[in-house]
Amino acid sequence: MWRGIIEEYREFMPVSDKTPIVTLFEGNTPLYQAPKISAAVGAEVWLKFEGLNPTGSFKDRGMTMAVSKAKEDGAEVVICASTGNTSAAAAAYAARAGMKAVVVIPHGKVALGKLAQTIMYGAEIIEIHGNFDRGLEIVREISDTHPITLVNSVNPFRIDGQKTAAFEVCDTLGEAPNYLAIPVGNAGNITAYWKGFNEYRQARHSGKLPKMIGFEAAGSAAIVKGQPIPEPETIATAIRIGNPASWQQAVAAANDSKGKIDMVEDQEILEAYRLIASEGVFCEPASAASVAGVLKLSKQGTFSETDKIVCVLTGNGLKDPDNAIKHGVSIEPKVVDAKAEAVVKAIFG
Amino acid sequence: MWRGIIEEYREFMPVSDKTPIVTLFEGNTPLYQAPKISAAVGAEVWLKFEGLNPTGSFKDRGMTMAVSKAKEDGAEVVICASTGNTSAAAAAYAARAGMKAVVVIPHGKVALGKLAQTIMYGAEIIEIHGNFDRGLEIVREISDTHPITLVNSVNPFRIDGQKTAAFEVCDTLGEAPNYLAIPVGNAGNITAYWKGFNEYRQARHSGKLPKMIGFEAAGSAAIVKGQPIPEPETIATAIRIGNPASWQQAVAAANDSKGKIDMVEDQEILEAYRLIASEGVFCEPASAASVAGVLKLSKQGTFSETDKIVCVLTGNGLKDPDNAIKHGVSIEPKVVDAKAEAVVKAIFG
Repeated sequence: MWRGIIEEYREFMPVSDKTPIVTLFEGNTPLYQAPKISAAVGAEVWLKFEGLNPTGSFKDRGMTMAVSKAKEDGAEVVICASTGNTSAAAAAYAARAGMKAVVVIPHGKVALGKLAQTIMYGAEIIEIHGNFDRGLEIVREISDTHPITLVNSVNPFRIDGQKTAAFEVCDTLGEAPNYLAIPVGNAGNITAYWKGFNEYRQARHSGKLPKMIGFEAAGSAAIVKGQPIPEPETIATAIRIGNPASWQQAVAAANDSKGKIDMVEDQEILEAYRLIASEGVFCEPASAASVAGVLKLSKQGTFSETDKIVCVLTGNGLKDPDNAIKHGVSIEPKVVDAKAEAVVKAIFG
Repeated sequence: MWRGIIEEYREFMPVSDKTPIVTLFEGNTPLYQAPKISAAVGAEVWLKFEGLNPTGSFKDRGMTMAVSKAKEDGAEVVICASTGNTSAAAAAYAARAGMKAVVVIPHGKVALGKLAQTIMYGAEIIEIHGNFDRGLEIVREISDTHPITLVNSVNPFRIDGQKTAAFEVCDTLGEAPNYLAIPVGNAGNITAYWKGFNEYRQARHSGKLPKMIGFEAAGSAAIVKGQPIPEPETIATAIRIGNPASWQQAVAAANDSKGKIDMVEDQEILEAYRLIASEGVFCEPASAASVAGVLKLSKQGTFSETDKIVCVLTGNGLKDPDNAIKHGVSIEPKVVDAKAEAVVKAIFG
């Protein structure tokens, strides 16, 4: 059985024999061929489905590292200011480690239903009379002065965990693809993949490097627009970030790989979201930014028929089922008599 | 990369070179050690987390078989009368196969939000002026007379798919555990595991057989009570079934293995649900029936310290986040001033 990313890729990870490995066997996620998307794009498109990680997102890769190192350092508590996938991953890995997880959020601003998963894992929620930025300041200050480890994206070990997804892509395909397409929010994940592809090439596990193409949502496209967005807005909540923490690294990954950072409209994201589901894969709306971006670039003639393009799908659609109803598809069931012929007629028209 | 259960266990599967394999790389799910539950039970307890299958439940194992065989037979449509995990799996695998999936439900009785995942995958929902039993009659009739394959639990290939989870348990542990604990609803899954353990032992991949211990919810405990339950009621919706399709096979599995079918109260299920989450694993309430049952039997002195017990967790908690809020845990965040010392005080008390 797969032993989790640290054990499987130990030679590439900043751990020693003394590091207690806290794992939920994250990683080893499927890489799907996508015939419908390939036909639409005119190239060979694959989907790396990170939604099948233990807590339902790619954050688990970073969190196994962050929490293992926190435990090694003797921390008793991990803390973050997040309402999304980060807090769920932090809570699960803290539970696994026998540590406490604390999530700091603004009072009265967050529907606690969004934190259901996080709360189930036993995290403690603390609401402050202040906004998210103030929350982040506070958790930084606390982690400097107490046996508490900050596991927000500023935690440096998370990148090392997340880079393993690039290893897996190379292992499955035999080498790196021509393009790696990825949603860009805080921009940590594009940074991590680029690090992973480079390390794997240096270790001669892949003969080439992909072009990194990252996609922000148009309503929060700080990097594309060249300035922070004070009030970012997009349906793709997991990448609704106006001032990416890894801004410079993301730009470097795009430039060094001869790729680019581009943006996609919410409407394009939703179309891609539905198209991905038609391949049998249910992802978060934010995840669909990668496929939406590839569809956009394909119309500009970016790809050739023989290109292999891997699109990263960062999270599980079950994280956000309301969007499926609200924006994904119309629900208008046919209503018929309780007779076989009526049902058959409804099926075949 | 893992190729899905049919390819990985082909010698045990009723497929030929002519069978088109429709897969989302289901199976290969984690088997977690559970230190907290082990301490509570006084034996070595493991969790087989089926919630990390592609659509979030064990149904994917059966559905890869059912849809592959349907495609082999030339069917154009798969059909089921289900609102839960079966319909989601049917829709996803049909999408993968380029087939249509149809879900028949009673008109006006089902909150369509429950079908969000199924609808996203592109399934067609048909509501009839009739109840679930009538729906099942109709889909049976249609599948006898049209190029439409019924993928409800009466489909015989599903058991062959689901039995592979037993293979994986043996592969990970090196042999079968002493006990296999499992939720019982329609009773197909306990039947499948028992078949799997027997086939693997015959093939000499395991030296022994486990005792099969299955747990119904007390409010729908037809097998335990020895008669169908006309109006089954339990919080564990995925096993809320009053007249199990595989009743006789489940009883045979329990008897032949010297195990038993028992039942657990909703309150016990919810306690187990929370305990499982404290191990870092978020499952459906119904899944927790296996752990609840093991906790119950442990109080009766059933297990010895050296016993290995594998508890099957059938589905992902993300399928039913409302229950986490309603029944899982209380959400009462601490509210404090936006100051580091106030947050620290809230953390350490």
